[in-house]
Amino acid sequence: MSTFDLDGYLTQRRAHVEAALARHLEACTGAPATLREAMAYSLLAGGKRLRPILALAACEAVGGGEDEAIDAGCAVEFMHTYSLIHDDLPAMDDDDFRRGRPTSHKKYGEAVAILAGDALCAEAFRVAAVNRKGREAAVADVVYELARASGAVGMVGGQVIDIEATGKQIDVAALEILHRAKTGELLLVAIRAGARMGGASDAILERLTAYGRALGLAFQIVDDVLDITADLQTLGKDPGSDREAGKTTFVDLLGIDGARARARAVMKEGIDALAPLGAKAEALRALARYTVERDR
Amino acid sequence: MSTFDLDGYLTQRRAHVEAALARHLEACTGAPATLREAMAYSLLAGGKRLRPILALAACEAVGGGEDEAIDAGCAVEFMHTYSLIHDDLPAMDDDDFRRGRPTSHKKYGEAVAILAGDALCAEAFRVAAVNRKGREAAVADVVYELARASGAVGMVGGQVIDIEATGKQIDVAALEILHRAKTGELLLVAIRAGARMGGASDAILERLTAYGRALGLAFQIVDDVLDITADLQTLGKDPGSDREAGKTTFVDLLGIDGARARARAVMKEGIDALAPLGAKAEALRALARYTVERDR
Repeated sequence: MSTFDLDGYLTQRRAHVEAALARHLEACTGAPATLREAMAYSLLAGGKRLRPILALAACEAVGGGEDEAIDAGCAVEFMHTYSLIHDDLPAMDDDDFRRGRPTSHKKYGEAVAILAGDALCAEAFRVAAVNRKGREAAVADVVYELARASGAVGMVGGQVIDIEATGKQIDVAALEILHRAKTGELLLVAIRAGARMGGASDAILERLTAYGRALGLAFQIVDDVLDITADLQTLGKDPGSDREAGKTTFVDLLGIDGARARARAVMKEGIDALAPLGAKAEALRALARYTVERDR
Repeated sequence: MSTFDLDGYLTQRRAHVEAALARHLEACTGAPATLREAMAYSLLAGGKRLRPILALAACEAVGGGEDEAIDAGCAVEFMHTYSLIHDDLPAMDDDDFRRGRPTSHKKYGEAVAILAGDALCAEAFRVAAVNRKGREAAVADVVYELARASGAVGMVGGQVIDIEATGKQIDVAALEILHRAKTGELLLVAIRAGARMGGASDAILERLTAYGRALGLAFQIVDDVLDITADLQTLGKDPGSDREAGKTTFVDLLGIDGARARARAVMKEGIDALAPLGAKAEALRALARYTVERDR
């Protein structure tokens, strides 16, 4: 058993992330009020802040300071938030609720929801680059990886694969490819970006990449389990909604117990990859265990 | 009268830009076929390529080589293309035709059109950063300015202002603010990004900024004139469509002759700002004259 105080760690890091997100949004003060409000509605809606916290933890794991990775972490959270707004649109998953509140397009209409997402996407790159002086090479690398992870071969491509796979039976390998593109690459970029800003070597980046890929896959498997087992109040969305929408899940292919076992096995591989990082990676290990054991 | 061969210049530069755009799109080969096809449909649909050509001309005007600015120019064109796809959506301007062909959502459906736009937005930053080695500082500056120009206080904010102003009477000052955000900032960033990649000093960047702001405003005034005077075949869209959509135009506020005179006066100021650049800025001057004198 680890003695790492994950609850305390998460509380402290979440507060740091929340403050930084609000500060980065303030740079949009000159924007139309409706747009700013819609951006804030989705960006400052709570959430686990898993991606920026992973960026901070990865930076720490390579010996960097907390402040070095905060912009990169926030950039990934801007990007993640935009993807949720667009995924919920009537033309996509057509969801009415997200985190227990009306989705952006239910509250602001479709035009403003699309544009709030568009703005958060562009602003993600502003956030990544705003404090670039003296660390231009790392910032340019982060921008490139963030663009790649969120573009046609990453998150957006994954959403297209998801739409095209809906209503069809696909196998475990295809499902893993889908989720790696749709959610895995962005989780991975949070970790790699945090590590880059902390000055990670290529060898350590490789270790963190193995960890990040494992974490992304385990995260999605557990999401599928929770979609079946959790109730509306815990999850903030309708349980079983993915299955009803005709989407193949890991539970369909492996069963609930099989999916849980696979998540644990994948996660163990990810934690093993962190061995050379020693005690500095304790937060990353705790986050991995949390990903598998969470109930929402 | 200038003896600058603008037609020859545009033909040569367009070929350079078309080849570079196609090459940058090839990096998305791993993406789902539907998505790649929708991205190519809009990105490789011809068009004037004014923005990347301005980037190349600005780079040249500060003594840089043509290849130094091509990525930055293509990044702006990716961004511009995504904005056209999203502006045409049913929730926005609801346009069926663009450049004489069905709009993206008419051809691929709304979901894929939204996602093709999303992908082009993210890929714009990949294109800006892909060849970053040895010029990280300029690339990071370009990324920051591109994000700012296309985000909440730039292009996306301008689209929100546009939607909110539709059906209302607004004055010339408000109309200039709308267009500066919606289209002016991105034209300006093409010029500034090209100049940055060519190694421009701050003093020269200021001159080019004055030129770029003038060009953006003149471009929009002429667009409004052409919306009234050009026919469908020349323009590739319905003439008078902006007026029918309840949008205030410079022609409404200044009349056709007044709008033309204002475009010429603004453009003269822009060309005057280029004086310290001498003969190297001849292409920028010719592009400014072309912007005012074009018939589509």
